[in-house]
Amino acid sequence: MNSIQVIAELDSLLAKRVVTSPSSGAIADIMAQTEAGGVITFSGGFPNPEIFPATVVAKLTSQLLTEDPGTAMQYSPTKGLTSVREVIAQWLSGRGEIPASTDELMITSGGMDAIGLLAKSYLDPGDVVIVEAPTYLGAIMAFESYEANVRGVPIYDDGIDVDAVADLLASGVRPKLLYTIPDSQNPTGCSMSGEKRHALVELCRRYGVLIVEDVAYRELDFSESRAPSLRSLAPDSVVQIGTFSKIFFPGVRLGWASGPVAVLDAMVGAKQVADQCAGSLGQRLVEEYIRAGQMDLWLPEARRFYASRAQTMMNALELTMPDGAQWTRPTGGFFTWLTMPEGVDTTALSARAVAAGISYVPGQFFYPNGERNHEIRLSFSCVEPSDIDKGIGRLAALFTKL
Amino acid sequence: MNSIQVIAELDSLLAKRVVTSPSSGAIADIMAQTEAGGVITFSGGFPNPEIFPATVVAKLTSQLLTEDPGTAMQYSPTKGLTSVREVIAQWLSGRGEIPASTDELMITSGGMDAIGLLAKSYLDPGDVVIVEAPTYLGAIMAFESYEANVRGVPIYDDGIDVDAVADLLASGVRPKLLYTIPDSQNPTGCSMSGEKRHALVELCRRYGVLIVEDVAYRELDFSESRAPSLRSLAPDSVVQIGTFSKIFFPGVRLGWASGPVAVLDAMVGAKQVADQCAGSLGQRLVEEYIRAGQMDLWLPEARRFYASRAQTMMNALELTMPDGAQWTRPTGGFFTWLTMPEGVDTTALSARAVAAGISYVPGQFFYPNGERNHEIRLSFSCVEPSDIDKGIGRLAALFTKL
Repeated sequence: MNSIQVIAELDSLLAKRVVTSPSSGAIADIMAQTEAGGVITFSGGFPNPEIFPATVVAKLTSQLLTEDPGTAMQYSPTKGLTSVREVIAQWLSGRGEIPASTDELMITSGGMDAIGLLAKSYLDPGDVVIVEAPTYLGAIMAFESYEANVRGVPIYDDGIDVDAVADLLASGVRPKLLYTIPDSQNPTGCSMSGEKRHALVELCRRYGVLIVEDVAYRELDFSESRAPSLRSLAPDSVVQIGTFSKIFFPGVRLGWASGPVAVLDAMVGAKQVADQCAGSLGQRLVEEYIRAGQMDLWLPEARRFYASRAQTMMNALELTMPDGAQWTRPTGGFFTWLTMPEGVDTTALSARAVAAGISYVPGQFFYPNGERNHEIRLSFSCVEPSDIDKGIGRLAALFTKL
Repeated sequence: MNSIQVIAELDSLLAKRVVTSPSSGAIADIMAQTEAGGVITFSGGFPNPEIFPATVVAKLTSQLLTEDPGTAMQYSPTKGLTSVREVIAQWLSGRGEIPASTDELMITSGGMDAIGLLAKSYLDPGDVVIVEAPTYLGAIMAFESYEANVRGVPIYDDGIDVDAVADLLASGVRPKLLYTIPDSQNPTGCSMSGEKRHALVELCRRYGVLIVEDVAYRELDFSESRAPSLRSLAPDSVVQIGTFSKIFFPGVRLGWASGPVAVLDAMVGAKQVADQCAGSLGQRLVEEYIRAGQMDLWLPEARRFYASRAQTMMNALELTMPDGAQWTRPTGGFFTWLTMPEGVDTTALSARAVAAGISYVPGQFFYPNGERNHEIRLSFSCVEPSDIDKGIGRLAALFTKL
């Protein structure tokens, strides 16, 4: 049997949603280039393994597997183990968040899992989702994988352009979901002002739009002067999704969704026929970690660590960037967003950047339609301070030569 | 704001695939009843925590978190860590399986995850999937969650009715997928004969149907006289999915898919926008567990353990069941399938069973259209031998009184 023929046949079986979804091939190509030696990588979005709490986790795991293997090693209910939901709910409440009740909390296998479950539960082909432009690439891909019509709205230093959302809604567009990252956004590093938060939830409430609030970087704010979360302002029409990847470690694959019971019911139904449940071992581990007070000990350290890396990058940009370049001052998280003069094609330049020993993610990948290509995302989370200086120098030299 | 009104609005946002999918509420009701005290539970399908390798896992985890936290705690590539795929591929090859190459292997977050990724990748609304009737409830629900048309074909003690599949195909039905559990099937406990395996793969090849081979119980065969896997017979048109939940532990959320690269590419694309990757800590753990030879030490013990429980159940059924009852002799795994005379409604009887101190899953839930309701699935995996005797006695008494 001719194997090429077989593969062609297999591809002809693919669902329409796969065939029409945009390929992530271009991004994979860029990532592959960065594996070359000597490249300083500003393109990753990973937390820094230097500060993973490995020793504490090792101790807690041993304890769990000795004292409670029957729970920690078994299946979990799809919504998550009750004791784990109780502890996380308490911890969130202590941080000023809703919920007070475990009914309104479910455990997911990371933040992206929650986005995927929401997309499957709510999006029919052609349904509109409003996102910030630029926004988290993974969310755009998840919505588009269910054939949604993803519409971008500008985002500024103080958050999404609420007037632009109002105009869209007034013009008759009826989105199912509005996806936003109000705190230290990916990719801009900016946070939404308190005023805009109030305006946005009122607007979405009026039009019956479910807000998906992604708080991935909320606990990694450098100044600890957070505005209230959207969910705390409008618990009836916001589902908040969080991840333990940035505040514990990614290898545990854990996140949460906190929202109206009707929304969680739909997500639990979707999760039942996806991975069934998040891992019990990881769930019990995060429970004991929070119980032991380790989360509250670790977070201030992590904030200082990333704030220091951010400051190093700010200094390096200030010192080296040519006129016409602009960048954001991150309020927290892992990223800054660099804007070059229009006409600079950062996608086209990425191969030259790699040749010069640096990598970044071109800005257009963070737009639903790739409409702007003179920006780049720079991540400082995993780069040594001396490499930040060296790498930003290389980047500035590249742009200066244009 | 009136909260009932809000919830109604939220439900009106749900995607069509959610609204049209059959509810799993009936099953949830039965499961909830079994939480009452004193009920002997034949309804679960969990592995027995008594034989989880807790001590070894604790030791390996400590070691990993000390020696390699940077990998074990970080994100993994979506397809899985290369070293993990290498070790699993080697182990599978040693068990007579394809692949020899890591390209044809991906790591999933359990077996159900793989089924969900295949369903998302291949199924448009109305697409036909052929399944054994009865079959794994979770698979039916996953296919229906993408609005597939799930068609059941009878299964006997020697496996699926291949002639019935041939008739369906000859009649013009064009399924995208055929889902089968050839070894110690859930819920019947039976295995497909070697002859049928050859016939089935030839038939599906001829019609261009992708076979999804679920080997969840393949390594838990009581006699260790396995027929060749479907994938080993037709690597070009079979994707095999396995789980570590039954042969390691469920709390680790790990499984695999082994299949043509084109199929895995589609699944990786779907996983990227679901949970992104299986947990690195669990991946590295299973890698070290296999490397240390622990898997090959543990499996014979597990087989003996479950074979002994199965034998206890066979003896109890033989001793107590009234005339007209029939049951399967499981070749491995966790289940036997009990058939009562037609007219006995096992769904209606389930509340009386719980009142009598036993629970089971009514047979109709394992059929795509719930078409037969005089059967039940009995699980022996997690029931103490003395409880098996007592519980089967209660069940026999219930049926004898009818």
